[in-house]
Amino acid sequence: MSGLFERLKADNTDAWRAYTQHEFVRRLADGSLPEAAFRRYLVQDYLFLIQFARAYALAAYKSETLADIRQASASLSNIAEREMTLHVTFCKGWGLSEADMQATPEARETMAYTRYVLERGMAGDLLDLHVALAPCLIGYAEIAKSIGTVAPNNPYRAWVEAYASDDYQAVAARELAALDDLMERRGGPGRFAGLSSTFGAATRLEADFWQMGLVA
Amino acid sequence: MSGLFERLKADNTDAWRAYTQHEFVRRLADGSLPEAAFRRYLVQDYLFLIQFARAYALAAYKSETLADIRQASASLSNIAEREMTLHVTFCKGWGLSEADMQATPEARETMAYTRYVLERGMAGDLLDLHVALAPCLIGYAEIAKSIGTVAPNNPYRAWVEAYASDDYQAVAARELAALDDLMERRGGPGRFAGLSSTFGAATRLEADFWQMGLVA
Amino acid sequence: MSGLFERLKADNTDAWRAYTQHEFVRRLADGSLPEAAFRRYLVQDYLFLIQFARAYALAAYKSETLADIRQASASLSNIAEREMTLHVTFCKGWGLSEADMQATPEARETMAYTRYVLERGMAGDLLDLHVALAPCLIGYAEIAKSIGTVAPNNPYRAWVEAYASDDYQAVAARELAALDDLMERRGGPGRFAGLSSTFGAATRLEADFWQMGLVA
Amino acid sequence: MSGLFERLKADNTDAWRAYTQHEFVRRLADGSLPEAAFRRYLVQDYLFLIQFARAYALAAYKSETLADIRQASASLSNIAEREMTLHVTFCKGWGLSEADMQATPEARETMAYTRYVLERGMAGDLLDLHVALAPCLIGYAEIAKSIGTVAPNNPYRAWVEAYASDDYQAVAARELAALDDLMERRGGPGRFAGLSSTFGAATRLEADFWQMGLVA
Repeated sequence: MSGLFERLKADNTDAWRAYTQHEFVRRLADGSLPEAAFRRYLVQDYLFLIQFARAYALAAYKSETLADIRQASASLSNIAEREMTLHVTFCKGWGLSEADMQATPEARETMAYTRYVLERGMAGDLLDLHVALAPCLIGYAEIAKSIGTVAPNNPYRAWVEAYASDDYQAVAARELAALDDLMERRGGPGRFAGLSSTFGAATRLEADFWQMGLVA
Repeated sequence: MSGLFERLKADNTDAWRAYTQHEFVRRLADGSLPEAAFRRYLVQDYLFLIQFARAYALAAYKSETLADIRQASASLSNIAEREMTLHVTFCKGWGLSEADMQATPEARETMAYTRYVLERGMAGDLLDLHVALAPCLIGYAEIAKSIGTVAPNNPYRAWVEAYASDDYQAVAARELAALDDLMERRGGPGRFAGLSSTFGAATRLEADFWQMGLVA
Repeated sequence: MSGLFERLKADNTDAWRAYTQHEFVRRLADGSLPEAAFRRYLVQDYLFLIQFARAYALAAYKSETLADIRQASASLSNIAEREMTLHVTFCKGWGLSEADMQATPEARETMAYTRYVLERGMAGDLLDLHVALAPCLIGYAEIAKSIGTVAPNNPYRAWVEAYASDDYQAVAARELAALDDLMERRGGPGRFAGLSSTFGAATRLEADFWQMGLVA
Repeated sequence: MSGLFERLKADNTDAWRAYTQHEFVRRLADGSLPEAAFRRYLVQDYLFLIQFARAYALAAYKSETLADIRQASASLSNIAEREMTLHVTFCKGWGLSEADMQATPEARETMAYTRYVLERGMAGDLLDLHVALAPCLIGYAEIAKSIGTVAPNNPYRAWVEAYASDDYQAVAARELAALDDLMERRGGPGRFAGLSSTFGAATRLEADFWQMGLVA
């Protein structure tokens, strides 16, 4: 039987396609995305990462074993330190300073997705939380891979390559395994419907996040 | 010095006006709101109330005194039993069955506001939670009062009268007092900026909720 | 196959026996318990109920369906209003005023059990929370039933009869069914070990609570 | 005016003295503590650190600024990685393997203190959480400093020196500053009584933790 992530996608095919093949993604891939759209996305992604760090903190709090705490702690510090620093450097290249990004209000779409993940994770358990995080974490790896090679002069090439990198693909692969492990430890046949509903909601909120960039 | 709620409004005048004088409200008041808009609003308000009940449950959990637990418990059971039953009866009059409403997916605006309140209340304390709830709870009382008397043939008359009723106005007045009491017990000058930011965010998400009805 | 509660007991037989057949229980049953011990227990049980009310508030917050919210809300208001009022009346008969009880510090054993339940329930899901509550909720029903008829002059007769009453036995029966329902919806074979560990910990902390009364 | 920590201590002098001058501490200082007591303490401290790591994860989740998230994240990874590794190495020197420590059940005193901190921090805000953590974090620094120089043949010398080290004293000093900063941002005169009650409870539960070691 295929893994949990594949079953969740199969149960949410339309939402998954609308997210991973969103116009924002297609125009990133062919380089036709307006710069303003990408910049708006980058600023909101900065604000998004702050909340995402909190979600990994929540995962560490919700852990019952030292191994789970350490894994979540490593993800938290990876986001709060390494990824945010890379993001800030990357954004500088697009003329965005960290001070400006911090001063920008969160868009509704940023709030909607991040608070949904945090709240679902708090009300549910570690498995609910990881399922709510999966569309972002694993989805970005899948999107970058499906884009494949981009034209050398595509302005968004560095973005695509970052998520297509072996490093990021390995992060996504570990999350795939973590989902199956958590389903084994905390799951059961009765949970799939609820998990799939969480996955679907998170996926739609991710698509909204692309859309927000597009209409900037 | 005026109470906390007045200070929060004064610090968010534009957002407060955009919410309390939203086109949805104005068209409710003059009866020109399309029925489809009102029905969409009613269905989402049903889904909203379920999450709002959870927010009062959170308030009871976050309470440190038996008096606070009892107050939150009374609000919770009032919403989960009395208000939801009234709402369902009211919706039947508009041709909406409870089964239909339960089967309707939550709109993004419903999710965005409710999860923000729940998450802010969980991450912060009882005062943060009440401030996040205030735009809805006290705002509806203020909106209904500002609408005042409506034409006898206004199709939304019963809605306005319910929130203008002495009963509901008393609920809002108690919440005003609760905010001041919590500010006394858990507040301080350093908290106002954060509380005002929460109040502003919640107010904007409430305005989005009207807007959602409008574009139905 | 037997229900979840029976499986949890079967996996924690020593702890369950140590709790349900604790010397405090045996001396309640034969009337030989010193009055000071019973009074200390009553005061701490008052403080315990306040935290227990919060645990049901947490259950309402953690609920995903309106039916679950309503059930938890009913339990919360039942404890915060009816049970606490009965308890206060009962305690008055033993010379304990509510003001005195509120002014008494929580014993370590009261804190240890209640915070364990609340924290386990928050970190885990609704099933973890109900399993942590079960030793108290269902255990008291089982203890009262196992004591059976007490001598007419047993000073603790009213206490035993309250928990042996049809009313309380029905509450416990509903909780038994709720556990099975939650196991169906949120459980799976991988969860039993963790649930049993929670059940064992909660049962031992309940036995400590009796012990606290005894050494008063 | 003196800092928050000094005010909290001044409001809980008896409890603070009972904790910081506990017989366990005095016998650590003069080397007369039985080895079995120290070993029991070490095993429970290992289990304690796992929950303490979760408390810092909770602090990261509860943070509203990236700076606060990063500070909590650094503390979390410091505990979950560096401190636990040092602790395990230290325990090996006392004949305790990590596998043995993981297989040891948590003592009631370990559960009581850690769950109290986690639950208080969840129900309250970041300030409540830091106040609940302070008796441990800052207390150990104060205890080690008050012990001062120990005899060269004192078997517990390495333990004392670890907490008296500049490194650990700096951690405690940062926490002192963090408390004042949080009191500025989230506090007010109305909060002191509640914070002091939390500090007192946590201090008493820390003294219980020493006592647990003593009666091993």
